[in-house]
Amino acid sequence: MTFARRLTIVALALITILMGLAVLAPATRAVMPSDGVPQDAAMGTQSPAALSVSDVSLMQAHVALEAAYEKAKSMSLAMDVAIVDAGGNLKAFIRMDGAWLGSIDIAIKKARTARYFDMPTGEIGKLSQPGGPLYNIEHSNGGLITFPGGLPIKNAEGQIIGAVGVSGSTVENDHTVAQAAVDALAK
Amino acid sequence: MTFARRLTIVALALITILMGLAVLAPATRAVMPSDGVPQDAAMGTQSPAALSVSDVSLMQAHVALEAAYEKAKSMSLAMDVAIVDAGGNLKAFIRMDGAWLGSIDIAIKKARTARYFDMPTGEIGKLSQPGGPLYNIEHSNGGLITFPGGLPIKNAEGQIIGAVGVSGSTVENDHTVAQAAVDALAK
Amino acid sequence: MTFARRLTIVALALITILMGLAVLAPATRAVMPSDGVPQDAAMGTQSPAALSVSDVSLMQAHVALEAAYEKAKSMSLAMDVAIVDAGGNLKAFIRMDGAWLGSIDIAIKKARTARYFDMPTGEIGKLSQPGGPLYNIEHSNGGLITFPGGLPIKNAEGQIIGAVGVSGSTVENDHTVAQAAVDALAK
Amino acid sequence: MTFARRLTIVALALITILMGLAVLAPATRAVMPSDGVPQDAAMGTQSPAALSVSDVSLMQAHVALEAAYEKAKSMSLAMDVAIVDAGGNLKAFIRMDGAWLGSIDIAIKKARTARYFDMPTGEIGKLSQPGGPLYNIEHSNGGLITFPGGLPIKNAEGQIIGAVGVSGSTVENDHTVAQAAVDALAK
Repeated sequence: MTFARRLTIVALALITILMGLAVLAPATRAVMPSDGVPQDAAMGTQSPAALSVSDVSLMQAHVALEAAYEKAKSMSLAMDVAIVDAGGNLKAFIRMDGAWLGSIDIAIKKARTARYFDMPTGEIGKLSQPGGPLYNIEHSNGGLITFPGGLPIKNAEGQIIGAVGVSGSTVENDHTVAQAAVDALAK
Repeated sequence: MTFARRLTIVALALITILMGLAVLAPATRAVMPSDGVPQDAAMGTQSPAALSVSDVSLMQAHVALEAAYEKAKSMSLAMDVAIVDAGGNLKAFIRMDGAWLGSIDIAIKKARTARYFDMPTGEIGKLSQPGGPLYNIEHSNGGLITFPGGLPIKNAEGQIIGAVGVSGSTVENDHTVAQAAVDALAK
Repeated sequence: MTFARRLTIVALALITILMGLAVLAPATRAVMPSDGVPQDAAMGTQSPAALSVSDVSLMQAHVALEAAYEKAKSMSLAMDVAIVDAGGNLKAFIRMDGAWLGSIDIAIKKARTARYFDMPTGEIGKLSQPGGPLYNIEHSNGGLITFPGGLPIKNAEGQIIGAVGVSGSTVENDHTVAQAAVDALAK
Repeated sequence: MTFARRLTIVALALITILMGLAVLAPATRAVMPSDGVPQDAAMGTQSPAALSVSDVSLMQAHVALEAAYEKAKSMSLAMDVAIVDAGGNLKAFIRMDGAWLGSIDIAIKKARTARYFDMPTGEIGKLSQPGGPLYNIEHSNGGLITFPGGLPIKNAEGQIIGAVGVSGSTVENDHTVAQAAVDALAK
C-alpha cells in the first residue's frame, strides 16, 4: 500500500466519522414536513450533511473493460460489456466484433440490475423463479435481467462504485468475464 | 464555520489532491482496449482512482421539501415537489393536498432534467424552441420537461448533489417554490 | 327518412324510457355499489349523488412514512417507501440513505398494486404463479409487483384511503415495515 | 459560388446520371438494386448474391472514441460519445468524468439518427422545424435527436460504416468533437 493510499484511507475514515456525527445530530427529526412540530433551534444555522459517495471513473471503467475484453479473447468469445456508475447510469460500453446484437441491451440491463440491488444478477434470479419470493421482479425498473453476468464493482476499499454487465455466451462464461472486470479493480 | 466542518473541508481537499495525482499518472493511457499497445509497467500494481462525489442525503431532501412546502403554503399553492439525487434517481417526493395529479410526473421529470444537464430547466427550454439549437431535446431520456420549475441543488460548498422539481401552478410560481428548496440547502 | 327508420327511432326511444324506469326501481338499480347510502325519493328531480371518497392526506402520508422510517431504522434496514392515494397516484416517497436504487420503482409499484386490487401484494402473488388463476398479471398496468411489501392503507373506520409499498430487504422485512406504516394510521 | 463548390455540383450531377443509367439497365428485372453485379444466365441454379457491407470494427470505434476524447480534453470539455455500427446498433460508448447524465441518451440517439438517415443530425434538424417537410420526425424510431453532434462515419474509401454521436456542451462543440472522431477514420 502506497503512502498516498494510506493517507486517502485515513482522510476517508475521518470524513466518515465526521459525517456520522453530523447525521446523528438531527436523527430524531422528522423525515417529512410536519406542521407545527417545533424546529430544532440549531437547525436554521446549518444544513444537514450530504452523503460522500465513491463513483467509478472513466479510467477505472477502461481498466474493467480491458480486463473483460482480454478474458473474453482468451476464451475465444465475443462479448458485449457494459459499465454503469454508482447511480446506475451508463459509463462505458463495448461490443466485440461478432458479438450478439441482442446482448447490447442485456449487458446494460445486467449491469444496472447488479447496481440496483448491489448483488450479482444471478443471486436475484434464484429468488425470482416461480414460487420464489421475488417472482417476476423483472417487470420493474423498465426491465431487469436476473441471470448471471452482472456484478457490482467495488474499489480496493470494498465500496460499491458501479457495476459491470456481460452478455454474449453461456451465463457461466458471461459471469467469468464479468468477474475478470471486477477483479481488475479490486486490487 | 464549525471545527468539524473545517476538518471535513481539509480532509476533502487532501483527497481531491491525492485523487488528482492518481488521475494524472495514467492520463496518457487509452480509454478503450487497444491490442498490442504496451501497458504502463506501473499499471498492474494499482487500480486507478474512483471519483469522489457528494450526494443528497435524506435529511437534506427533507429540509428541501419542507422549505418548498412552507413556501407553497405561504403563497396559497398546492404543489408536487420531487428531489432526485446526484445520479438522477428519486430520493423523496410529496404531493400537497389538492395538487394536480398531472404534476407528479412533471415534478419528477423537472428534477431529473435539472440534474441531467446541471442547469435550471427553464434555461434548456429557451434553447429547445423551434429554430433553437436544442429543438425537441424533450424526446430524449424518456421525456424531459424544459420549462421552469427544476433546479440543481448544491451543498454549501457549491457542489451539485441533486436537483428539485416543482409543478402545480404557473411556471413562475413553480420556479419560486423550487428556489426556496435550493436556498434551504445553500446556507 | 324511411318508415322503417322512423320505427327504429321510436323503438329506441321506448327502450330508453323503459330502461330509465328499470334503473329507478331499486332492485335492478345500481350499476355500482352504494353501501347503505339512503336513496332520495325525489331522485329524478336532482343530479345523482357523487361518491364520497376518503383519501389519504399529506399529513397521514407523513405519519405513515415516519412510522416506516422508524421501523426500518430499528431493524437496521435502509428502505424505499412509497405512499399512493385512493386513485393509485403517488402521494409521497422517501429513499433512506443507502437503500437500493432498484427499490424506488418496486416500492412505488407495490403501493400501486396494493391499491389497484385492494389487497396485500403477496396475496396477488399467490394467484399469479404458473398455473394460477392470475398467471402473469404482472404484465398489466405498466408492470405490477406481486410479492410482499405492498399493503392497502385504511383509516380508523376501515375504509381504504391509499396504499403503502416498501422495498429494500427481504420480502418479510419489506412487509413488516409496510405493516408499521399501516398500523400508524389505523388507530 | 466557389470553384470547388461548382466542381462538387458537377460531380454530383455526373454520379446521379451514371447511377440512373446503372439502375435503368436492369430495371424490368430486379425488385431490389444489384449495382453492377453481373447476372448469371443460369440464375435459377444458384443463390443470388448477398450484399457486402462494410461495418465499423471495435478497433475503429476505439480509434474514433480516442480521437473524440482527446479533442474534448483539449477543449476542456466533458463529453458523452457513442459509436453505432452500420446496423445502427451501439458498438462502443464512453462518458467522460463529469459529463452530463442526460447526454448518455442524447449521444446514443444522435449516433443512431445520423446512421438512420446517413447524414449529419443537424441537417435533419433543419427539415424538422415547424412548417418543414420532416416536422416532428423526432417522434419516430423511439426518439430521434436532430440537432448537431451526430455524424456518419466513413472508411477511407468513403463508405458509411456507422456513426458517432457526441453530447455534453453546445451543439457547435458537440459537432466539433464528433468531427474529430470521423476524421480519425477517414485517413
